[in-house]
Amino acid sequence: MAALAGAEAIASAGRLVTPWRSHIERSLKKNKHLAYSRYVQLATVRDGRPANRTVVFRGFLDQASDALTFVTDSRSRKVQEVAANPAAEVAWYFPATREQYRIAGDLTVVDGRTAEGALQEARHRVWSSMSEGGRQQFGWPHPGRPRAQEEPDAWSRPAPGPQDPPLDTFCLVVLQVEEVERLLLFSNERYEFRKQAGADGAISWTEESINP
Amino acid sequence: MAALAGAEAIASAGRLVTPWRSHIERSLKKNKHLAYSRYVQLATVRDGRPANRTVVFRGFLDQASDALTFVTDSRSRKVQEVAANPAAEVAWYFPATREQYRIAGDLTVVDGRTAEGALQEARHRVWSSMSEGGRQQFGWPHPGRPRAQEEPDAWSRPAPGPQDPPLDTFCLVVLQVEEVERLLLFSNERYEFRKQAGADGAISWTEESINP
Repeated sequence: MAALAGAEAIASAGRLVTPWRSHIERSLKKNKHLAYSRYVQLATVRDGRPANRTVVFRGFLDQASDALTFVTDSRSRKVQEVAANPAAEVAWYFPATREQYRIAGDLTVVDGRTAEGALQEARHRVWSSMSEGGRQQFGWPHPGRPRAQEEPDAWSRPAPGPQDPPLDTFCLVVLQVEEVERLLLFSNERYEFRKQAGADGAISWTEESINP
Repeated sequence: MAALAGAEAIASAGRLVTPWRSHIERSLKKNKHLAYSRYVQLATVRDGRPANRTVVFRGFLDQASDALTFVTDSRSRKVQEVAANPAAEVAWYFPATREQYRIAGDLTVVDGRTAEGALQEARHRVWSSMSEGGRQQFGWPHPGRPRAQEEPDAWSRPAPGPQDPPLDTFCLVVLQVEEVERLLLFSNERYEFRKQAGADGAISWTEESINP
């Protein structure tokens, strides 16, 4: 018989805590000594084939949301890929706790032309939290093009400051989550979380224990 | 001007050393103290959406090949996915050296019914190199199904030994590589390796330096 927990979204002090978000926050805390535990692998589809790359988790969109955020360059191939097919799955492995999360959903790319207030605000907020080196990359020559020998300065141009408007190439990538799987390698447990919308539009999550 | 290196496949003592395979072998050596540096993220396509999970690198197929190997359970979803669409991309991040490889190609699943000698031999070889715990998993209840409470013994049944024939559920997964990208985060270098077949069918690789 399946061990089925009911909808577990808990509203507490204005903050939506989905069961899997709480797990990820605990995993982040326990793996904090490993800076790369914030690196995840983001898969998308390009012309019917998978594309997969490591990106840095930049936090949840806001306190009341369980959308994940990343950043990318508007000139990178994944921006075109997402326009053609927004489907994505993140694989996130936490070495210290031996946990894996698989997080599936759809991506939205937020650039300088995005009007929507909250998303544009989030783009500015993430820009201002980036290091000088991180901001600088958005002024680099076109990613993926053959490397030119003649532009030694191109890699060291100073970036706009954290309080300046982001460069046009700076995009926030938002993953709206539909399904999460959590695998615990120490204890051989595996859980599946699925999003459900009630008749009144309210979002809840189901949790099911499945075979590892 | 692009920094283009010519075909660099070197035959040495009967061993084909592609430039990117040598890099991966060096990365494995330098990251050896991190057991999880052998964990990679393997993306495939499922019904037009990406699927992404962490798998353990089980070595190159053999000394004369640059195909990567992994293992999986014949009952796992990825086996059906690969039958429908063999395209895959591995994202492999090495924490100590801050390198990322993206390795694209097509997957072949080798199970007990595969006739071909060399692939079946490789399946047996990898089975015999697995730990007791690793082998045992292939006798576990059906992966991904709702977890039953009534089968406490199902998780601790002893596995066939390393010299016994592999369980029917044990599959070798072989990634035939077409394209590799290597990104060095310490030095901000990025290289693209592409497979080329000459008029005589001989395989060679090109290497190009591209913008990170």
